[in-house]
Amino acid sequence: METIVVALGERSYPIHVGPGLLGNAALYGLKAKQLLVVTNDVVAPLYLERVQAALAGHEVATVVLPDGERQKTLTTFATIVDRLVDARFHRDSCLVALGGGVIGDLTGYVAASYQRGIDFVQIPTTLLAQVDSSVGGKTAVNHTRAKNMIGAFHQPIAVLADTDTLRSLPPRELAAGLAEIIKYGIIVDAQFFAWLEEHIDELMALDAATLTYAIRRSCEIKASIVAEDERERGRRALLNLGHTFGHALEALGNYERWLHGEAVSIGTMLAARTSLALGWLDAGDCERIEKLLKRGGLPTRATGVAADELLDAMRGDKKADRDGLKLVLVEALGRAVVARAPAEATLRGVLAAELE
Amino acid sequence: METIVVALGERSYPIHVGPGLLGNAALYGLKAKQLLVVTNDVVAPLYLERVQAALAGHEVATVVLPDGERQKTLTTFATIVDRLVDARFHRDSCLVALGGGVIGDLTGYVAASYQRGIDFVQIPTTLLAQVDSSVGGKTAVNHTRAKNMIGAFHQPIAVLADTDTLRSLPPRELAAGLAEIIKYGIIVDAQFFAWLEEHIDELMALDAATLTYAIRRSCEIKASIVAEDERERGRRALLNLGHTFGHALEALGNYERWLHGEAVSIGTMLAARTSLALGWLDAGDCERIEKLLKRGGLPTRATGVAADELLDAMRGDKKADRDGLKLVLVEALGRAVVARAPAEATLRGVLAAELE
Repeated sequence: METIVVALGERSYPIHVGPGLLGNAALYGLKAKQLLVVTNDVVAPLYLERVQAALAGHEVATVVLPDGERQKTLTTFATIVDRLVDARFHRDSCLVALGGGVIGDLTGYVAASYQRGIDFVQIPTTLLAQVDSSVGGKTAVNHTRAKNMIGAFHQPIAVLADTDTLRSLPPRELAAGLAEIIKYGIIVDAQFFAWLEEHIDELMALDAATLTYAIRRSCEIKASIVAEDERERGRRALLNLGHTFGHALEALGNYERWLHGEAVSIGTMLAARTSLALGWLDAGDCERIEKLLKRGGLPTRATGVAADELLDAMRGDKKADRDGLKLVLVEALGRAVVARAPAEATLRGVLAAELE
Repeated sequence: METIVVALGERSYPIHVGPGLLGNAALYGLKAKQLLVVTNDVVAPLYLERVQAALAGHEVATVVLPDGERQKTLTTFATIVDRLVDARFHRDSCLVALGGGVIGDLTGYVAASYQRGIDFVQIPTTLLAQVDSSVGGKTAVNHTRAKNMIGAFHQPIAVLADTDTLRSLPPRELAAGLAEIIKYGIIVDAQFFAWLEEHIDELMALDAATLTYAIRRSCEIKASIVAEDERERGRRALLNLGHTFGHALEALGNYERWLHGEAVSIGTMLAARTSLALGWLDAGDCERIEKLLKRGGLPTRATGVAADELLDAMRGDKKADRDGLKLVLVEALGRAVVARAPAEATLRGVLAAELE
């Protein structure tokens, strides 16, 4: 097991990475007696029993939601709050999020809001959640017209990234997690990117040591950026490489066509191509990015999407301000920057060429 | 005009107190261009125009809600969020809460949650909101079965307490505000309590200078406690004197029988009587409290409520934890403490005697 600490003063917390963590009660860091485990109907049959065994001695209630992004709404949020009120959960109780990003984001936002904030523990069971959504305290639910529009910054008290849970993950979801891992290399760590080029096949084969290293390094990078800029006033925005394009694609695909990581993969390529068109990134690096994403089993192009509809969908992005859209662009492997989007004609040109 | 600063590091902000502030654009401290003013149908006809005039040069949208506590729900919260999404409000936009505690708490919670947090300005137009709810960053909506169950700590960027707005306040609402002002004296400032005994009649007559001093001193006390303990881990709980009883009474009265300040007045007397029964407070101080509340036009007894139903309603309180109920009790005028509730028999005895 490896442990990374997210250094945020009194809100600091550990991320534990490795096999066999679910059953280790000490890692949960619990002071609370009243616990509510929130999970879904895919994860519950696989891991809920093990978690409940680890929590023996506490008063444990459980909410099992249907699987899927459709649950990440204010309506489901209200349902969980009802459960907490009905069971008279106190301010010193704790939530446990057992599942992927949807469960983590939703449960985290309930924890942020119930009685103005109670503790919660993240147990991410997808690669995407282990390397991204469970780290850094971003919680949210979706609005019908925009993802993650309603939320809070609320840090968990501990994160347990149990690599054993990845064995039950469908290959498409594994690839979706790889998209975020590759992103860390592109934005700040060219060496890690090169390491990924060497080890991508072992990762895809779920080699335990390789997996643990890749998750640890991803969490380290994210933790250090979050520690510097918890509320995304500056540097943290780098983590959104590919996400402005990606969120817009997800919306256009009705949140069904692409998984988040797949949309981020396509978005990362669009950011890379835009950087290339601006003369910031050289063609060789651009190709290395595309090749690694493809080897990770990820899509790099969005067929059947018109440049104009994508541009329009992007304008509602959270990173837009009154002066217009901002994008994360790439100057070189390991060096991304937040920049004003280029002139619309330039951007439309890149998109038209890419989207076909 | 007097200005108090709530010292919270990078979240510090000014509270301006005095007459004629609404029209003073500079006091709003705005950087945002996109603004949404949230107000209600009682306040809007009186003050909205003046606020809009002060905000000329910004893009200003407005939401006018029906008046009343019934609006403080997750449903209304969602309606305001819809407006923000529809109008493509960005992360650098700002909300303006123009009204009493309901408008302030609700608007503040929207500001805390929209895109995980945007700026907001508080313009409290009731005495209660000017001395209490607009200061300190507590925002929330009600759950059907418990007040303020869903919320966040989110500080405004400025508070404008314009004493002119109190001239339109019904006498019952003015008295409700006095309950919180008297509370500050009881919990930490015996001298202020004595000053109130001398000046209560001028306050009731809305004498401008007396009003400005009472509001300023109340905000000073609240600001200093909040600066010490923003998230209510300790000392901030003193501000809840009378509130555990009060919230339970409000619920039992279906949020219609008593205004919040009236319920707090009765609750403060119940806390004082409990303190007396425990031998902590002497009879003379207990009487001074009752006399001042009465002179302020406030109820001090809840007729027709059974001790057991009140006790039961109190158990769902946010200040309860797994070891039971906590109460703010009074050791002497100017010295309150947070304590475990006394044995149920003692408490029931006090309540039975008081509630009749």
